[in-house]
Amino acid sequence: MTRWGWLSALAGDAATRDRLSETRQIADMLRVEAAYARAAGQCGKVPAQIGEAAADAIPGVRIDLDALATAAARDGVPVPALVRQIKDQVPAQLHPAVHAGLTSQDVTDTAMCLALHDILEAFEARIVAVQAGLSALSDRFGDRPLMGRTRMQAALPVGVAHRIAQWSAPWPDHLDRLAALRPRLLRLQLGGPVGTRQSFEGYGDVIAAEMARDLGLIAPPQAWHSQREALAELAGWLALVMGSLGKMGADLTLMAQQGIDTARIAGGGNSSAMAHKANPVRAELLVALARFGAGAVAGMQGALIHEQERSGAGWTLEWLVLPDLIEGCGGALRLGVALLSDIEDMGEPDRP
Amino acid sequence: MTRWGWLSALAGDAATRDRLSETRQIADMLRVEAAYARAAGQCGKVPAQIGEAAADAIPGVRIDLDALATAAARDGVPVPALVRQIKDQVPAQLHPAVHAGLTSQDVTDTAMCLALHDILEAFEARIVAVQAGLSALSDRFGDRPLMGRTRMQAALPVGVAHRIAQWSAPWPDHLDRLAALRPRLLRLQLGGPVGTRQSFEGYGDVIAAEMARDLGLIAPPQAWHSQREALAELAGWLALVMGSLGKMGADLTLMAQQGIDTARIAGGGNSSAMAHKANPVRAELLVALARFGAGAVAGMQGALIHEQERSGAGWTLEWLVLPDLIEGCGGALRLGVALLSDIEDMGEPDRP
Amino acid sequence: MTRWGWLSALAGDAATRDRLSETRQIADMLRVEAAYARAAGQCGKVPAQIGEAAADAIPGVRIDLDALATAAARDGVPVPALVRQIKDQVPAQLHPAVHAGLTSQDVTDTAMCLALHDILEAFEARIVAVQAGLSALSDRFGDRPLMGRTRMQAALPVGVAHRIAQWSAPWPDHLDRLAALRPRLLRLQLGGPVGTRQSFEGYGDVIAAEMARDLGLIAPPQAWHSQREALAELAGWLALVMGSLGKMGADLTLMAQQGIDTARIAGGGNSSAMAHKANPVRAELLVALARFGAGAVAGMQGALIHEQERSGAGWTLEWLVLPDLIEGCGGALRLGVALLSDIEDMGEPDRP
Amino acid sequence: MTRWGWLSALAGDAATRDRLSETRQIADMLRVEAAYARAAGQCGKVPAQIGEAAADAIPGVRIDLDALATAAARDGVPVPALVRQIKDQVPAQLHPAVHAGLTSQDVTDTAMCLALHDILEAFEARIVAVQAGLSALSDRFGDRPLMGRTRMQAALPVGVAHRIAQWSAPWPDHLDRLAALRPRLLRLQLGGPVGTRQSFEGYGDVIAAEMARDLGLIAPPQAWHSQREALAELAGWLALVMGSLGKMGADLTLMAQQGIDTARIAGGGNSSAMAHKANPVRAELLVALARFGAGAVAGMQGALIHEQERSGAGWTLEWLVLPDLIEGCGGALRLGVALLSDIEDMGEPDRP
Repeated sequence: MTRWGWLSALAGDAATRDRLSETRQIADMLRVEAAYARAAGQCGKVPAQIGEAAADAIPGVRIDLDALATAAARDGVPVPALVRQIKDQVPAQLHPAVHAGLTSQDVTDTAMCLALHDILEAFEARIVAVQAGLSALSDRFGDRPLMGRTRMQAALPVGVAHRIAQWSAPWPDHLDRLAALRPRLLRLQLGGPVGTRQSFEGYGDVIAAEMARDLGLIAPPQAWHSQREALAELAGWLALVMGSLGKMGADLTLMAQQGIDTARIAGGGNSSAMAHKANPVRAELLVALARFGAGAVAGMQGALIHEQERSGAGWTLEWLVLPDLIEGCGGALRLGVALLSDIEDMGEPDRP
Repeated sequence: MTRWGWLSALAGDAATRDRLSETRQIADMLRVEAAYARAAGQCGKVPAQIGEAAADAIPGVRIDLDALATAAARDGVPVPALVRQIKDQVPAQLHPAVHAGLTSQDVTDTAMCLALHDILEAFEARIVAVQAGLSALSDRFGDRPLMGRTRMQAALPVGVAHRIAQWSAPWPDHLDRLAALRPRLLRLQLGGPVGTRQSFEGYGDVIAAEMARDLGLIAPPQAWHSQREALAELAGWLALVMGSLGKMGADLTLMAQQGIDTARIAGGGNSSAMAHKANPVRAELLVALARFGAGAVAGMQGALIHEQERSGAGWTLEWLVLPDLIEGCGGALRLGVALLSDIEDMGEPDRP
Repeated sequence: MTRWGWLSALAGDAATRDRLSETRQIADMLRVEAAYARAAGQCGKVPAQIGEAAADAIPGVRIDLDALATAAARDGVPVPALVRQIKDQVPAQLHPAVHAGLTSQDVTDTAMCLALHDILEAFEARIVAVQAGLSALSDRFGDRPLMGRTRMQAALPVGVAHRIAQWSAPWPDHLDRLAALRPRLLRLQLGGPVGTRQSFEGYGDVIAAEMARDLGLIAPPQAWHSQREALAELAGWLALVMGSLGKMGADLTLMAQQGIDTARIAGGGNSSAMAHKANPVRAELLVALARFGAGAVAGMQGALIHEQERSGAGWTLEWLVLPDLIEGCGGALRLGVALLSDIEDMGEPDRP
Repeated sequence: MTRWGWLSALAGDAATRDRLSETRQIADMLRVEAAYARAAGQCGKVPAQIGEAAADAIPGVRIDLDALATAAARDGVPVPALVRQIKDQVPAQLHPAVHAGLTSQDVTDTAMCLALHDILEAFEARIVAVQAGLSALSDRFGDRPLMGRTRMQAALPVGVAHRIAQWSAPWPDHLDRLAALRPRLLRLQLGGPVGTRQSFEGYGDVIAAEMARDLGLIAPPQAWHSQREALAELAGWLALVMGSLGKMGADLTLMAQQGIDTARIAGGGNSSAMAHKANPVRAELLVALARFGAGAVAGMQGALIHEQERSGAGWTLEWLVLPDLIEGCGGALRLGVALLSDIEDMGEPDRP
């Protein structure tokens, strides 16, 4: 039914998956096409009322998803078929305002940034929730004793607060990184077929400014069809976040071991064979997702080589890797929040 | 709707995706549970008629998928809930033959091997089709002249047959590797909670032999709950196959360049902006999938560290990575066959 | 003789390799130990003249490298043996100021940051040189015609300036990222055995402030023994830089093809078999290094899971991956500058 | 001084590093050139006594390493300069038997296979030693009780023999994989400039047969300049071996924890701060090397796309990744043998 089969409910993130669904993507693409039509009208590339009418009509176009998928399998991208469907349903006199001068990648990249905008907002809120969970945990158990362990060996006492402080340390930096990333990433894509904006007949820069304002994105001075550094930086950020959560998860699986017994976690998974077990499933998932993220970021870094003006191979590789990485990070954040609230006890047990 | 959104129709492989779907997985798991019941009856662990009756009843159990998904999200694996649903629908006197002594991973690993069995058979047939396509291509265009190129520079003439011979060379080895891999990979999993087969009360080895015979798998002398080398080897094989196709795809994108013009490919993708273009979409996809495969194999190699008797983190990582890698290889093979039949001309063009 | 054998002279970077050599590392470690001694004296943890005398003596200690290597092979880290050698050569009355309360990782992490400080300064200068090279290239050839190519197909004319503008676009962002990274990365490490600073008997924070001032590093409020996000961020930055250069290299290998002929590059490699060839070796190396960087960054992301207070496995993985990645980035920057100055011509050739 | 700095003595493998050193590589290349000269004489491509005399003279040529390195940095490969040095020292009448018709990659690939031949023999011997160590360990401690642990939780008793059996299971398959790999990997490379063997004037196949016999390699029917599947398969095998050792190392770090106390390991690393600790350094190194191997194999899979007849970028990427991966596997095998003999006790401790 969904991306990772059974794991989707477990490790995935339904809200993020939905935000990246084909249905939402189409809505985003229609938003982009509408913003273009409006901007083309406002700057005078087409008559203002033509642009405005097209912009009003486009969001209401009913898209035949199956036909789109079939065409996408031939063209390598759904946009040509989407434009055909728009033109089939919009009066011919509005066609000059529809997609004229755009290239497919203008539409898909901008639509992707609209989705990323929302997703990063949601992730930021979850990071705040992770921080709140850590703070509450420290309030509850920070005073309890804990043996520090280095190189997997008992070393010297540290106390629970110290362990939690280590889990808490990375998050302010993650938020700083995110704040710096946004203006590099959440950018309108507008270049036309070869990225020069020549297809907009001199109106390219004003259309870009207007569309960006309309869509809540940054207006870059030029197209970034084959400059994908910000996407690889995003991948790196997602994997960093997953790594911080993975470290916490790894620590908790170690703390929950019988014989160590320095964390008790509710909501553990049932075993089909051993009723007495309470598997630290969420903590294990954080470890698995961190390792998944580490691999995925290599895929995105490997997609940096977009040859010439636009690369089909590079672009495809991004789409093979990035959605899963995004959902995986969303899942990790969701699991991290839940895991923190599942912790019932921390600290060295009373031993006889 | 599906794994990679728009890319699924383009880069994916519906048949392989279906074979790995939750619906098919459940059917495989029920097949495993039935084989267990039958084997338990045949060897005398439970009365023969109890085992046989349970084996007959289990495949007809109607599974509530939503309930299963909800429970899987809690337990980390769908099997405990699946067993509960079986027991709810099978008479109580048959319960001694249902899952008694098995652990979840016995069921999911064996079910996975049933799917891999079928998928590898399909992939082998596609490899034969790739070989046939290459042979036909050489028959058609092998005599045509072609400038050899090394380090991206024109070097000396080689002829089209030589280029195609290089694309053809890896396939016999891939088939040999597959033949050697199968007996290491397509193995029954039977170990019980900690992999010792003690939970089968002395019947473990005979049950394993009988189940393996029933299911068409190898009966290994011991469980492989935390020995995952064959899965990583499978990942390596899939990525090798994708790499061989990626090399062919990369060559064809280079040959199709205007100015080089040594391959003409039909069925190119339409451009939303430039009607004159025929993008070599399938060749580009092969490059993207090869690079995707290279990253994914790292994920599977990274999942080799299954700690202790069974690892939740390692197992989860496998399921995050392997299904996409399998489908990607299936997609690459499908695209490779199609691309070969799309080639309309090869060889140096007549130049004035 | 060196890291990558023959490739070192070709793809590597002697200056960077030297900055990370064992000899330089030892000098850095001695600097750290001296700064500690001085700080301990200044704050009153040891008598001021003891601290100052130890700080004066430590840099002059003569280290037996072979003995250090042998001990490192046993202890997993050279610091314990280094401290023994220091104490053997420094008067006993100064020993209270030597390493007391430090842990090995305090010394090695801080020493690494001293090296990274210098290396990043050098890399920044090379980035400026890349930018200058691109600017000069655009001045020389920007007005020349160039066919734009998308999805490996000729599309519409763009002009050479447009292609160079794409190569130039990422660099201001890379410098911004570097500026943001430095204060997160170039931090003193001071925690003691389990990272709590308790071993400094209440003087930890003042010692940290004083050492950081002395060494030109940031004084973080707590140790970061198992918070390695900034190192993974560094790896991501290095790989981003390598990716931007790899895109330029890939474009140039495509432009240098006979039949395309839109770039002529001097200094090409000789062929042992074909005297007429001028292989675009440096451009190819940039592609190879970018792909190398993409893989290496996964290794560093995978090292984020430092369990508990300090992780031997995670720390070792960093040292297996990071030095090569750093040198590879240094090599790519060096090659990028050289390649730009090797370009003798750009633009569409005159065709009959 | 060496590849990974301090880590070389710890995690590396001096014997393997030496076998891949530039000095040994040159000796291998000279062996290849001599075998070529002899074969050219035997088949009649050059007069027999010319071939034989050249073959006798070539191994004694004194190579100026510095000049070679400088030339390699220009040409992208050391062979052209090597051939020049040979010709400078061998009488001119023998020059027709020197390198005539060969391409650089013929020499470097064949030389690499000579090194791999020896290295794989050494690794096989170490695998046998690992198996012997495991067997001895089981003899000593197999009867001791051990609690089985699944998903990081105590589950049911398994006994030490069961745990060791899991560590032992992968090795026979690794040896089988190696036996199957060798004939695919250890192949003479002979193709000439574009891989067609046309430069050998009809003698290519007989020269290949004769050289292969002389050098103890397989004579493939065609060159494999851009068919690199066997190298990626080698990388996969190395990483599999490292993964099996990593799983054992991870288990031992978990068993050595205070509170678990089911393994006592001698020879632990000293701590500069805590004299009571005995860090399980070798076990940690096995984990780090397994994770390193998982990343490196992605690099080699990513090098499968060797475009056209020979790829400088692909070939360079191999040499950036493979030597470290090989040495890392050698180090892991060495450490595995040592770790097994360091184990002083296994099994559940007597608890009050």
